[in-house]
Amino acid sequence: MIRLRLSLALSYEVNEPGSNFIFNIHAAHTNRQVVVDESLVVNQQVPLTVETDPTTGNRYLRLSAATGPLQIFYTASVDLTHYMAAPEQIAEVPVARLPAQVLGYIYPSRYCQSDRLYRLAMREFGQRQQGYGRVQAIRDWVAQRITYAKNISDSNSSAIDTLIETAGVCRDFAHLMIALCRASNIPARFTTGINYGVDPAYGPLDFHAYVEVYLVGGWYLFDPSGTAIPMGLVRFGTGRDAADVAFATIFGEVGSSPPVINIEAIAGADGLLVMPQLVRSALSTDGQHQGSP
Amino acid sequence: MIRLRLSLALSYEVNEPGSNFIFNIHAAHTNRQVVVDESLVVNQQVPLTVETDPTTGNRYLRLSAATGPLQIFYTASVDLTHYMAAPEQIAEVPVARLPAQVLGYIYPSRYCQSDRLYRLAMREFGQRQQGYGRVQAIRDWVAQRITYAKNISDSNSSAIDTLIETAGVCRDFAHLMIALCRASNIPARFTTGINYGVDPAYGPLDFHAYVEVYLVGGWYLFDPSGTAIPMGLVRFGTGRDAADVAFATIFGEVGSSPPVINIEAIAGADGLLVMPQLVRSALSTDGQHQGSP
Amino acid sequence: MIRLRLSLALSYEVNEPGSNFIFNIHAAHTNRQVVVDESLVVNQQVPLTVETDPTTGNRYLRLSAATGPLQIFYTASVDLTHYMAAPEQIAEVPVARLPAQVLGYIYPSRYCQSDRLYRLAMREFGQRQQGYGRVQAIRDWVAQRITYAKNISDSNSSAIDTLIETAGVCRDFAHLMIALCRASNIPARFTTGINYGVDPAYGPLDFHAYVEVYLVGGWYLFDPSGTAIPMGLVRFGTGRDAADVAFATIFGEVGSSPPVINIEAIAGADGLLVMPQLVRSALSTDGQHQGSP
Amino acid sequence: MIRLRLSLALSYEVNEPGSNFIFNIHAAHTNRQVVVDESLVVNQQVPLTVETDPTTGNRYLRLSAATGPLQIFYTASVDLTHYMAAPEQIAEVPVARLPAQVLGYIYPSRYCQSDRLYRLAMREFGQRQQGYGRVQAIRDWVAQRITYAKNISDSNSSAIDTLIETAGVCRDFAHLMIALCRASNIPARFTTGINYGVDPAYGPLDFHAYVEVYLVGGWYLFDPSGTAIPMGLVRFGTGRDAADVAFATIFGEVGSSPPVINIEAIAGADGLLVMPQLVRSALSTDGQHQGSP
Repeated sequence: MIRLRLSLALSYEVNEPGSNFIFNIHAAHTNRQVVVDESLVVNQQVPLTVETDPTTGNRYLRLSAATGPLQIFYTASVDLTHYMAAPEQIAEVPVARLPAQVLGYIYPSRYCQSDRLYRLAMREFGQRQQGYGRVQAIRDWVAQRITYAKNISDSNSSAIDTLIETAGVCRDFAHLMIALCRASNIPARFTTGINYGVDPAYGPLDFHAYVEVYLVGGWYLFDPSGTAIPMGLVRFGTGRDAADVAFATIFGEVGSSPPVINIEAIAGADGLLVMPQLVRSALSTDGQHQGSP
Repeated sequence: MIRLRLSLALSYEVNEPGSNFIFNIHAAHTNRQVVVDESLVVNQQVPLTVETDPTTGNRYLRLSAATGPLQIFYTASVDLTHYMAAPEQIAEVPVARLPAQVLGYIYPSRYCQSDRLYRLAMREFGQRQQGYGRVQAIRDWVAQRITYAKNISDSNSSAIDTLIETAGVCRDFAHLMIALCRASNIPARFTTGINYGVDPAYGPLDFHAYVEVYLVGGWYLFDPSGTAIPMGLVRFGTGRDAADVAFATIFGEVGSSPPVINIEAIAGADGLLVMPQLVRSALSTDGQHQGSP
Repeated sequence: MIRLRLSLALSYEVNEPGSNFIFNIHAAHTNRQVVVDESLVVNQQVPLTVETDPTTGNRYLRLSAATGPLQIFYTASVDLTHYMAAPEQIAEVPVARLPAQVLGYIYPSRYCQSDRLYRLAMREFGQRQQGYGRVQAIRDWVAQRITYAKNISDSNSSAIDTLIETAGVCRDFAHLMIALCRASNIPARFTTGINYGVDPAYGPLDFHAYVEVYLVGGWYLFDPSGTAIPMGLVRFGTGRDAADVAFATIFGEVGSSPPVINIEAIAGADGLLVMPQLVRSALSTDGQHQGSP
Repeated sequence: MIRLRLSLALSYEVNEPGSNFIFNIHAAHTNRQVVVDESLVVNQQVPLTVETDPTTGNRYLRLSAATGPLQIFYTASVDLTHYMAAPEQIAEVPVARLPAQVLGYIYPSRYCQSDRLYRLAMREFGQRQQGYGRVQAIRDWVAQRITYAKNISDSNSSAIDTLIETAGVCRDFAHLMIALCRASNIPARFTTGINYGVDPAYGPLDFHAYVEVYLVGGWYLFDPSGTAIPMGLVRFGTGRDAADVAFATIFGEVGSSPPVINIEAIAGADGLLVMPQLVRSALSTDGQHQGSP
């Protein structure tokens, strides 16, 4: 069990009264990711609602802000009890046996146009043995061909843009890996959160985007950008792609500053400090399916 | 109350053993669309499963077929009790009050890239009075600018392609209308089904795609292609866009013939024959929200 | 006759030895645009070549720079003797009579995808009376629908992007107008230069992009962005689109600063100072075709 | 010296009087491709003009047709005296020494968006030794990744589409190879013609598209689709991409049938029959530059 303590501060300048915000900045509730304690402070005295989506565990904070500064402070301590499995023992789930609620994750979405990548995926990955290893091969293919670079992509960039431009940030790596998994008929989803253990070379800590892939046992973690240790990821939200799980969706004229984020490993309930580390095992933090990750 | 009787026959030639099919060809179950009787016949002796998605009411038929001909016959009698409302009394739901499960329908999706159309939508519809009338204006804008034409668009075509090419089929009209609604922060979804009352000029009856828009009271029907009478639509599936609700998703090498579809109005339980007609009222067949359409 | 005096200063930091530059920053030579005097100063002692393209009159300065600062100063006095004609008397040239060297300007190019806009152009402009007035209608259509805005478009943006995003800079206005002209079978080309008389609200003076359209009599000037007085335009280069006439094409690792540009009207050889002004007449500065603009 | 005899028959049904046609179906005139004899027969009694573009040697047949059938028959005997060179002795021309009239072929064009492929080209080919071998490597990269397939691409398809879809016809192979050459700062152009020696597996003989690349000595032939013997290519036209050199550009409502094309090797003036064959040498049929191919 790993206990991580995270804090984040968001700052906005609201120029239009009644601007609406939908945040997805709460650590998700899953069987294997337990929020031990948390606090939320908002500088404006406005009504707040926090809803939990029953299917994904995503939590949405919604508020309507007055003009002037809006500041959000969130802190949480989160216990992660990863499901771990040996990669070579994890098989793919045949399409015929995919649960209905997972089917949506093999279809194309806004930034993951898998419908245009079937031939490419077949050519590159079609002959590989099915299973976790094939997904790892997709992840490595993306990691090798795409260069981490800011200022190449923007919020409209999609998996196809990334394939062409061969550069992007974590969001772009994730979109391309997801599109290639789906083009191979393997369900994949976009996940956001905060990650422990990022190389400071990547600049100030920011929200992170990574990938979860559905194989026998449940949804497994992959970080195609290679910027994080998968074991150190705290999940906020999952969705079809970045369109579904922006950390902030804003309706109104609002200026914003970069978020200020911190995360550290702390001692757990048993007094032991366990650090996230890079492991060979497949990891999952999803606890919705019985007897599974 | 309207009772419609529909039948459809699908024919495939399966060239790869174990090809998997996911069909969405069953009339959906909603409070206001009741399936009175139905039958499904498949020529191959293979296991069939039919699942109902609890959130949408979509029903999915899944099977794995042997090589050779595969034929699916489906017939159903469906009772429609539309919720009807006066257009001028239907308001938009402010973003701040949208239910969490509706939020996904204001985000962009594969074929509805609303994220690139905010300025266009603001320019064209931003000054209009909010409410059903504004949605009707979006529907009319699409209907006026896009020409119904086969062989211009294909399965990769998106709302942006349709805006540029100014031509397409019902699927393309629906995608563009949805994208413009979402760009105006109005939730909209893609709906498929069979429609009664199509002008024979459009050729043999085919599956139809139309739009449902979320306003106060629930999801209202719009047919931007203008090829159908909204009152005559029998719903099969709803989703973010065509990526979610193909009538058939096929995994394997399979040839296909055009579907053969029929629909007629018949006498209901009370012995009365009521024909769908074009009405000025707003219509909804969605019955999931209490005291609403 | 109008005499304009312009100066421009370009500053680069060359990080890779032997970086190659191709500049198109010399005022073009045409019968109606005469360069009275000019000077070119380059801070580095490197060989310079200036070539004139015989078909377009574009002049290309080429050099290979050493590492360190590279500074280019160019000044010129240019006499403009516009061909002027009454708009209502200018007809279109039927495709069958277009000169061979003009044909290339009805074909699509990198940023002007006229091949995808035929139906839109036919719908919007197909019923209009042919002639200068129809081109003016295309120009006005673009000017009305597109908003001048920096930071929306970038160097990859095309006419289709601008149509969708409905915002851009002078380059984007020009590309969209050109694409719509070509989709209407009217030859149009992309022209760059410096313009006298820009509203200071648009920020520091920069290179300008506008449109020349081929009609009976030759190539006529249009400024769809509305930021300039067409009579005050000094032409540097013309081409199919921005791909052909970048003011600087750089091969190597080079940093750059914004150009510093000035232009003013001065007294001509006859001692008279004539100011460019907004006129109703059609204008042309192209002098390649006998007895024509 | 190789002598090839070709014939082609084009059939149209003209539905709109005065429909205009621009054909590029005449064998080009170059120093190394000499048209020994030719004939052109058109079934309609309409004025014909044939113009030769002085820069490219392309010949354009223009006519305005009456309603009803339009049939064009063209036959020619062409002598090819290829310039041949050893691949390992052919260097690239540094950008700084590219002739002005060649510069346009390093810029992006409608279907060859080299501006988006710089990073990909640098990654794949940036470390290779410059020269003919590098261009051959680009050609082979395209040939290996793209599958020849009809009905995947259409007339709007570009190099980027082909890179994504990984399938297409000769036109698509050519566009992708051109884009990658230009992204590597190597001038490349699109060439059309008829090719001797096509494997009948590709179906009835059709117009062919291939690539010419500018290296020391001139423009060298490459056939990335691998469907033809480069030595058997008879050139009709060259341009930036398919936008410039359609074999027929039609203005008006016109139906068309597939062309009927034949080509054979025949005895030359010396009575010798020389067959085109696959050779290791670099080939060029361009004779515009003194002492060069």
